[in-house]
Amino acid sequence: MTIGNLFASIPGSLPEELFDEILTGNGFKLERIVSKGHASPEGFWYDQDQHEWVLLVKGAARLQIDGVDEPVELLPGMHINIPAHRKHRVAWTKEDEETIWLAIFY
Amino acid sequence: MTIGNLFASIPGSLPEELFDEILTGNGFKLERIVSKGHASPEGFWYDQDQHEWVLLVKGAARLQIDGVDEPVELLPGMHINIPAHRKHRVAWTKEDEETIWLAIFY
Repeated sequence: MTIGNLFASIPGSLPEELFDEILTGNGFKLERIVSKGHASPEGFWYDQDQHEWVLLVKGAARLQIDGVDEPVELLPGMHINIPAHRKHRVAWTKEDEETIWLAIFY
Repeated sequence: MTIGNLFASIPGSLPEELFDEILTGNGFKLERIVSKGHASPEGFWYDQDQHEWVLLVKGAARLQIDGVDEPVELLPGMHINIPAHRKHRVAWTKEDEETIWLAIFY
């Protein structure tokens, strides 16, 4: 039995986004991601072999999805399921507080 | 690509706890659970064939774990990993607001 807290163990300064593995199951991996004003580099797109389900737990973000004109605005409680090889990038995350994501790669 | 919101589609009255399946992967199932003052019946214990990782997203709850003297108090952001067949029960959830859980059964 393991207890954890998504809001704990966040360093005061975040030069890079923070990726922490929480759990690995048979066929999936669960990660916490912490962003603070980070965005994907201009022209960079994630192109992943796995599906990704991601929940925005805290903060705010905009995701750009290949083929979708407007960025998707994500607020706390919102989740999005991104199929494998559906290209996407983080267009924006809030600058003045941490944005905490919970992602399942499967 | 599917977008959802953990805080949406909650009926005004919750005579029973609400279970919604969000996603089924190969080897896991993701569910939202909504409680409001619900607790497991006296003497009832969950005894599950699968492991359960559960995050408290909103609200507050106390979980009783077999073999642990004090109930585990869960607040937003806290998560607990309960191995298969580790008996547990919900001792208490907040009465005056919804408690929202995100559970992975795997």
